[in-house]
Amino acid sequence: MNTFGRLFRISVFGESHGDRVGVTIDGCPPGIALDMGDFVNDLSRRKSGAKGTTPRIESDEPEIVSGVFNGFTAGSPITILFANKNTRSTDYNFTHKSRPGHADFVANRKFNGFNDPRGGGHFSGRLTLALVAAGVLAKKILKGISINATLKQAGGMDNIEEAIDKAMLQGDSIGGLVECIISGLPVGLGEPFFDSVESLISHAVFAIPAIKGIEFGSGFRAAEMFGSEHNDPFVDEYGKTKSNYAGGINGGITNGNDIVFRVAVKPTSSISKPQETFDFDNKKSTTLKIKGRHDACIALRVPVVLEAVAAIVLTDLLLVHHSTQPFALKD
Amino acid sequence: MNTFGRLFRISVFGESHGDRVGVTIDGCPPGIALDMGDFVNDLSRRKSGAKGTTPRIESDEPEIVSGVFNGFTAGSPITILFANKNTRSTDYNFTHKSRPGHADFVANRKFNGFNDPRGGGHFSGRLTLALVAAGVLAKKILKGISINATLKQAGGMDNIEEAIDKAMLQGDSIGGLVECIISGLPVGLGEPFFDSVESLISHAVFAIPAIKGIEFGSGFRAAEMFGSEHNDPFVDEYGKTKSNYAGGINGGITNGNDIVFRVAVKPTSSISKPQETFDFDNKKSTTLKIKGRHDACIALRVPVVLEAVAAIVLTDLLLVHHSTQPFALKD
Amino acid sequence: MNTFGRLFRISVFGESHGDRVGVTIDGCPPGIALDMGDFVNDLSRRKSGAKGTTPRIESDEPEIVSGVFNGFTAGSPITILFANKNTRSTDYNFTHKSRPGHADFVANRKFNGFNDPRGGGHFSGRLTLALVAAGVLAKKILKGISINATLKQAGGMDNIEEAIDKAMLQGDSIGGLVECIISGLPVGLGEPFFDSVESLISHAVFAIPAIKGIEFGSGFRAAEMFGSEHNDPFVDEYGKTKSNYAGGINGGITNGNDIVFRVAVKPTSSISKPQETFDFDNKKSTTLKIKGRHDACIALRVPVVLEAVAAIVLTDLLLVHHSTQPFALKD
Amino acid sequence: MNTFGRLFRISVFGESHGDRVGVTIDGCPPGIALDMGDFVNDLSRRKSGAKGTTPRIESDEPEIVSGVFNGFTAGSPITILFANKNTRSTDYNFTHKSRPGHADFVANRKFNGFNDPRGGGHFSGRLTLALVAAGVLAKKILKGISINATLKQAGGMDNIEEAIDKAMLQGDSIGGLVECIISGLPVGLGEPFFDSVESLISHAVFAIPAIKGIEFGSGFRAAEMFGSEHNDPFVDEYGKTKSNYAGGINGGITNGNDIVFRVAVKPTSSISKPQETFDFDNKKSTTLKIKGRHDACIALRVPVVLEAVAAIVLTDLLLVHHSTQPFALKD
Repeated sequence: MNTFGRLFRISVFGESHGDRVGVTIDGCPPGIALDMGDFVNDLSRRKSGAKGTTPRIESDEPEIVSGVFNGFTAGSPITILFANKNTRSTDYNFTHKSRPGHADFVANRKFNGFNDPRGGGHFSGRLTLALVAAGVLAKKILKGISINATLKQAGGMDNIEEAIDKAMLQGDSIGGLVECIISGLPVGLGEPFFDSVESLISHAVFAIPAIKGIEFGSGFRAAEMFGSEHNDPFVDEYGKTKSNYAGGINGGITNGNDIVFRVAVKPTSSISKPQETFDFDNKKSTTLKIKGRHDACIALRVPVVLEAVAAIVLTDLLLVHHSTQPFALKD
Repeated sequence: MNTFGRLFRISVFGESHGDRVGVTIDGCPPGIALDMGDFVNDLSRRKSGAKGTTPRIESDEPEIVSGVFNGFTAGSPITILFANKNTRSTDYNFTHKSRPGHADFVANRKFNGFNDPRGGGHFSGRLTLALVAAGVLAKKILKGISINATLKQAGGMDNIEEAIDKAMLQGDSIGGLVECIISGLPVGLGEPFFDSVESLISHAVFAIPAIKGIEFGSGFRAAEMFGSEHNDPFVDEYGKTKSNYAGGINGGITNGNDIVFRVAVKPTSSISKPQETFDFDNKKSTTLKIKGRHDACIALRVPVVLEAVAAIVLTDLLLVHHSTQPFALKD
Repeated sequence: MNTFGRLFRISVFGESHGDRVGVTIDGCPPGIALDMGDFVNDLSRRKSGAKGTTPRIESDEPEIVSGVFNGFTAGSPITILFANKNTRSTDYNFTHKSRPGHADFVANRKFNGFNDPRGGGHFSGRLTLALVAAGVLAKKILKGISINATLKQAGGMDNIEEAIDKAMLQGDSIGGLVECIISGLPVGLGEPFFDSVESLISHAVFAIPAIKGIEFGSGFRAAEMFGSEHNDPFVDEYGKTKSNYAGGINGGITNGNDIVFRVAVKPTSSISKPQETFDFDNKKSTTLKIKGRHDACIALRVPVVLEAVAAIVLTDLLLVHHSTQPFALKD
Repeated sequence: MNTFGRLFRISVFGESHGDRVGVTIDGCPPGIALDMGDFVNDLSRRKSGAKGTTPRIESDEPEIVSGVFNGFTAGSPITILFANKNTRSTDYNFTHKSRPGHADFVANRKFNGFNDPRGGGHFSGRLTLALVAAGVLAKKILKGISINATLKQAGGMDNIEEAIDKAMLQGDSIGGLVECIISGLPVGLGEPFFDSVESLISHAVFAIPAIKGIEFGSGFRAAEMFGSEHNDPFVDEYGKTKSNYAGGINGGITNGNDIVFRVAVKPTSSISKPQETFDFDNKKSTTLKIKGRHDACIALRVPVVLEAVAAIVLTDLLLVHHSTQPFALKD
């Protein structure tokens, strides 16, 4: 459902044009310093307003409702809210003409017509604000571990700005490729089988709207490689490897080398160009012209969200890792 | 950990050269007919023995310990065991020379040297037997839904047999690309955010050893596409779409079109060729020659495992879907 | 942690003297009518102000932040907030003199001194507001099922008012006994072993502060009975029984008869009388006089909270029950 | 369902007259020494054969299938099986005359007639063997912590043997009262609200068949006490208290004093005396005479099971406790 994590557990809630969106973070260790300033950088990286992003501008100030006391996490659940102010719901009245690529159709069917359809409702990218806020806290817990995601390509081109300009001119949108690199992790995070590092990261990553694929290390290239080429030779006693086709993970467990993964982001589904769709009320094909305000390249805003979910997963795995350490030391 | 699923829940256990491997399936609806014959096809598809797979041959007869009564599932947990008979542990004495690409090193560090290292221990591909057995049951529950996975390429070539021959001649291994298509699903399976269909399928898929990437529908190509091209126009009142770049999923929820996903399988880590690695006992670089018995192309055995985990995930989501249906009908 | 439930899942957050307390309800079926009026009765039953309850009076108006659209549940998570207005934190400065019977000492140790100690912080009975709010929704889902809890005794006496008067006169507090009866349930809710009805109800009930014991049906009397007396003879084909020592549950599963359980509520820990305790700063015994505002008999406010947690558990079990029903019908 | 625990997680499976019953323990720290001898004492305490217990005698030798290597836990899931040998299913053919007090009726309805009814099937007390086996391991992890449960009364009498003799003479059964005391726990185990120590212990305890009530510390007496009497004064800097009405728990968290709880065990439902019941096939009242082999006082066998579930819960909480300790030390 809308909850994720075993020991460090986040729950998201809210709708795009509802009152507020928010997140509750349970299981955060006490004593982590946290103030408003901690959120500024990541929230502004996620924010729209730059060329290629939606002109809907929100102030996105986090309101901490619980779980922080005298500037430190208190051990109790931390709830953070964000107000939705700059909404124009009249732009989004498409219940009978479900927007292609969006969740309008499935949300209507799944929730029997009771869902909030405005701006995609609960399925909106606005909910990624909740993920980024939780990520800010997770990154603070992961002291000494660096997590960096960057947009490597947009519309298949390295020259990202040019690609976006071209798409905007045509009232169209483009996808992108984002890479994330994580350094400084200890050996041994992750669990065999269902709590493998790849399982948990991919689980969380596909909660981000618009992601179509994920690959670790060599990724899809691995399908074309020889084993003699793909195997990463160990070169020191700490597990450092010569190459890193494994992407820092063996058997689902971190091996101390950088975790590397890449995701494919689809082009924003909302475009200004007219589109074919089906009129579900009148049961006939029709043409849809979306007004609203959209990102030409939603991938621009994905890196900070990707870092956030990676940080959330790794914090959870780090806490799980700690749980058995006292036994390891003793025996 | 080694458990997965919310209502239809599977737990795997066992080690490659231990006594037995097995699976417990909890939450299976009562009244599903199940006999030994149901397992034959999928277990033999997974089995080694064909060219390109390991010569370690196991009979792999399932032993049903509980949860089946008079030929039907009884509502209680179903535990299925498989004996490990054909093991040669002397082939696998590499604790000080961790095999590149394998989990030997991380398992040793994570479990403080207490793990069973023989044949990879709990990290072995032998555990996929447990997944396939659970998948057999899941497929029976998913009456009317077809799930088909096929190996599309090996070593980057469509001529799969040729690619394998070439690799075997060199004492090397190759990777592969497997595609899975699922037809006949209702609209509305999956949950927003963390229980999206992609989140759960990818979670389960990365529990399969050797998977390096997964993509849904357009996948990594989406990163290079325009929105006007990528959006799938709806063409009828049941949600059928003209194209299927979405891979049958919008907003994490099935839209009634085929689910399509592809995975990249890395080349088998065990190869006959000598390899560089590190001697962790004597703290110096060394050369490793793996005897044992290996698959030249482990991807050959992945399709049936992929079908199994997809079936497991969809069964769980179908049960979750049912849970709110009586309300949908009433209101 | 602060989350409970498998399909109908609630998460509570907040501190007694923090900004707000609240609850998120995930997994609620869409289409349940919900407006402010629905909360009035149960919130006022929980509210303080009557004789024997604390003079701290809060307006306790629920603020619905998400998940409700046009007067119906929307299928997305429902977050409800309650403001803390009438707080007097200066009354609660006991960090060095932990109040006997309260969580002050354990909270300080567990959270390494970072917890919010004001009014008990996250351990406050104020959080039961969140439970009652979720209970209101659960009761609406459980159409046709009645849940009634009543205070049967206070301070060991049936004449409850008299007992409270006596305690208040002495600046003391008293405990009480609350009984809950649930009628109209179908046969078959609950799961064998760990999700037995008793397991889940008791789990949730002990989340309510001040509960010291729970018993179902015959309860502690069962320890003194003969089997020939305790067994409830079936009297009709629907499972109706002559007696109901089982409390409506066999093998952890509802049998269609009334569920009956009773809980023991301890006397409020905060009393006006001076008490012995330990001064943890100065490491010596000391005397503590609590000012603040307290309930003389917290049991007065327990019935509606008990109903709420029972409703939450049964809603979850009802959804789980639905999940396998389509299979039951077919086979 | 049949799984319990967050980090230390057990899953039980099997039916009374099926092939085998068993348990899988996931999340066990590696390096815990474990051999057959460790099981002898607790398994024999649980075993039937003494006066007042069923004459069905099983050898109950544990078969460890996975997760133990060279005499130590390996970090992977531990599956332990027990064969059912001494079964007489012909004694248990009551599908149309559900035995009063047993789960026959509810199991038949819940599982639509597909459940294994022999000897109660999955609802049998035989499954407690799985709990005891997991408890043996949990106790080994809880080094330095003592857990002792004893039968205090049977049939309301302190002279237990006499009470049992009397019941047996009459072909009847009696209930009992069991107390469990746990010493040596650190301060701080348990979590606020839903993972309170009482919540988790009671959850697990009600998974044991025949339990009708549980109380902690003062328990039901608390309902009759004054606060001035019930509050436990702290007497030293480690949190030691003068009295222990709290039963070692404040706010759901261990306070370093002994945990004390008591449970009521109902009289065995199977008795030799004829009983009224309903004939569900012929839809009329009837008389039932149970042959089979039964315990006259099942409470005799409860103490070791109670210790086991307490140990399982506390091990889980101890692992959770460890997970945040490195942060506590640093900040």
